[in-house]
Amino acid sequence: VRTWAVVVAGGNGVRFGAPKQFADLAGRPVLQWSLETARQACDGVVVVLPPQHEKGWSADLAVVGGATRSASVRAGLDAVPVDAEIIVVHDAARPLARTELWKSVIAAVVEGADAAIPAAPVTDTVKEVGPDGSLSTLDRSRLVTVQTPQAFRADVLRRAHQAGGDSTDDAALVEALGGRVDLVEGPPDNLKLTSPADLIVAAALIESGR
Amino acid sequence: VRTWAVVVAGGNGVRFGAPKQFADLAGRPVLQWSLETARQACDGVVVVLPPQHEKGWSADLAVVGGATRSASVRAGLDAVPVDAEIIVVHDAARPLARTELWKSVIAAVVEGADAAIPAAPVTDTVKEVGPDGSLSTLDRSRLVTVQTPQAFRADVLRRAHQAGGDSTDDAALVEALGGRVDLVEGPPDNLKLTSPADLIVAAALIESGR
Repeated sequence: VRTWAVVVAGGNGVRFGAPKQFADLAGRPVLQWSLETARQACDGVVVVLPPQHEKGWSADLAVVGGATRSASVRAGLDAVPVDAEIIVVHDAARPLARTELWKSVIAAVVEGADAAIPAAPVTDTVKEVGPDGSLSTLDRSRLVTVQTPQAFRADVLRRAHQAGGDSTDDAALVEALGGRVDLVEGPPDNLKLTSPADLIVAAALIESGR
Repeated sequence: VRTWAVVVAGGNGVRFGAPKQFADLAGRPVLQWSLETARQACDGVVVVLPPQHEKGWSADLAVVGGATRSASVRAGLDAVPVDAEIIVVHDAARPLARTELWKSVIAAVVEGADAAIPAAPVTDTVKEVGPDGSLSTLDRSRLVTVQTPQAFRADVLRRAHQAGGDSTDDAALVEALGGRVDLVEGPPDNLKLTSPADLIVAAALIESGR
């Protein structure tokens, strides 16, 4: 099955303080970790980058991202060849996702899902803050946190994005269309780099062999 | 204001593989980190332990925990002197909580809250899994994950636990009584040790000076 990756690295690192996808992680830029994994799992790779950063990355195609994450994903989708049957979307901010995880989400789509995404149990208590500041505690046994890489039937993902919604989670757009979204086990070490301390954490995990 | 700590270390580490509160973290047992912080922030410290582990810890009082986390908290509460006005409950699985965090939850209760708890923004997408396996994506801007230490007016916490509920989150019991629960900023590095990899992460954070 012809499979392409869209690796999203278009952010400007407002929360992080700098474009985190270019920071050094154990001797390689954060982004390079994802590009190498994408290359092992897929037939082709599109990388979505901020303006003026398109050169020098080991992808088949590099495009410039948009103002939102969904706009960046759409820029990537536009570059994916029309004969791709499965498209995997991955955030460069998750450099530790392993090839096996990419392969399991792809396998779930091959087996019939419209989308397959890694999900992990919620280990902390989660509360919802009401408009009046009141708190309610959610039943965490029913909650999961979701990660990338997320694999999709190419036609379903394109349709979901044609509707033009905006979400930091592509699977949510597929859910909105009524598509079948399967969960695969998301490893706890598939860390998302959010704060600079997360780079220290990611380096420690790599060094320990995880 | 007379303030006591209840440090909960009664777990048997089923998910972790061993009682994680006794594992080594940068040269000291995980539990000792919390006991030292508790000592700096409070007038007295009760530690709640599994059977046969009561000796050798630097707390004013050591008690044996119960079958659930709430039963363990209640065992700790029973040992706190009746003249304590504020009680801070903390999980030994969060060894990196700093004295300043303890002081800010205590200060919020001094200023009038029934409870004050550290809360952090949710950085991952969170989905709810319905009884039929269907997924819905929650609005994460309205969600927070909560941590310990959690500070309480002593009478409110005792009343909340007299109702006999069971929750991994004491603040939820106070919410159920209609009490005022204030949020303070929960640092992203106030890690909860859940998997053995988290020990590596915690050690790296300590070593980096965070």
